Amino acid sequence: MRIEDRLVELDLTLPQPIKAPTGVHVPFAFVRVRGNRAYISGHAPTNADGSVAGPFGKVGAEVSVEEGYQAAQSVGLAILASLKQELGDLDRVVAWLKVHGMVNAAPNFTRHPEVINGFSDLILKLYGPEAGQHARSAVGMVSLPFSIPVEIEAEVEISN
Amino acid sequence: MRIEDRLVELDLTLPQPIKAPTGVHVPFAFVRVRGNRAYISGHAPTNADGSVAGPFGKVGAEVSVEEGYQAAQSVGLAILASLKQELGDLDRVVAWLKVHGMVNAAPNFTRHPEVINGFSDLILKLYGPEAGQHARSAVGMVSLPFSIPVEIEAEVEISN
Amino acid sequence: MRIEDRLVELDLTLPQPIKAPTGVHVPFAFVRVRGNRAYISGHAPTNADGSVAGPFGKVGAEVSVEEGYQAAQSVGLAILASLKQELGDLDRVVAWLKVHGMVNAAPNFTRHPEVINGFSDLILKLYGPEAGQHARSAVGMVSLPFSIPVEIEAEVEISN
Repeated sequence: MRIEDRLVELDLTLPQPIKAPTGVHVPFAFVRVRGNRAYISGHAPTNADGSVAGPFGKVGAEVSVEEGYQAAQSVGLAILASLKQELGDLDRVVAWLKVHGMVNAAPNFTRHPEVINGFSDLILKLYGPEAGQHARSAVGMVSLPFSIPVEIEAEVEISN
Repeated sequence: MRIEDRLVELDLTLPQPIKAPTGVHVPFAFVRVRGNRAYISGHAPTNADGSVAGPFGKVGAEVSVEEGYQAAQSVGLAILASLKQELGDLDRVVAWLKVHGMVNAAPNFTRHPEVINGFSDLILKLYGPEAGQHARSAVGMVSLPFSIPVEIEAEVEISN
Repeated sequence: MRIEDRLVELDLTLPQPIKAPTGVHVPFAFVRVRGNRAYISGHAPTNADGSVAGPFGKVGAEVSVEEGYQAAQSVGLAILASLKQELGDLDRVVAWLKVHGMVNAAPNFTRHPEVINGFSDLILKLYGPEAGQHARSAVGMVSLPFSIPVEIEAEVEISN
């Protein structure tokens, strides 16, 4: 349980597994495991109880870059909670592979990488520069579900 | 041919393989097979003859959520037609892995998951909860080719 | 070094490896290699020295389709420079698998495939119709980092 020990050292707590808002039909898996791969669905920032968290709106308009960074870190914790639920132990993630970082962005926004760094910094602090290394994109979406400011999907290699 | 039998039971018909509009150069494969993976290009909704289908425009503006749901189901049928052409038998898809659902969306749109459910519900009805399970994102694009309301790309595991 | 020979035949030169603008923290790998896969981060068009290149702005507004096509080719060369740095030899790419082409687009833009063809045409000229074949999406983003007109991410199979 090395990764969970590091979470404690960093004073971070995993939220409850993500919950869709009431009445929203979710016909997919938040984590899809097959062989040595886990495919991770687009996750929202969440509160401690797993509900979708604000601030809501577009980064570069209602939401600041710093709030976007915090939201991206919150997405990271939500993804880790989903991985823990699916895999049992976060140490089973042996390599982060790719991360697609989607920012709910104003049309003239240009600082998407600084926002998604909230996610990448967290993963590297927890998994270190080898297992935590990942390819990444950070781009601007015209709108996101529930007006969340950031949504991130990813792919990782796992041990069996 | 279990999947094709289920299509008949559901009263659904595969369209002809997708055709790009006249004059559009398409230097890529609609399905790229390599080893036990098939990578599926972004597909549009299509008519029975494989031509790109309307309604055209943005969901949350000119196109309703219900029309978006139907468009996402149409994208699913177009993808299945491409897979059948490439693989010969749709039963060779042994696991859906990931789905990236892109909605041509108004800036204030928030119901992307309900739109992409048109795709996910179809895949789960055809492939069942094990082979059909998939990770997914549902997000808003500022514009899509030919003003289609939905474009979906995916990755699946196949048997050889 | 067959691919580098073809670059010379086509009168194309690889830029220096991509450099983030001063002060931008880049906590990720431009290429992430694992097993027989290389995951390629979203790349920008670059100048010969690896700096991010213009023209800046949205295709369909400040940037023309032809300029977008050239920008997508420039992204291709930047990606090849990253692959050469990581792999040593571009011939180690044995199969292009998938390409996600993101255009910084005006809301009414519809010609995304023509833009991303600048990338696909380059890869097919260099790698030929078998190794170069790829699944692809070409879609519109509301904004991209540094106002670049095109960003492309990809996944390839490599030999070890």
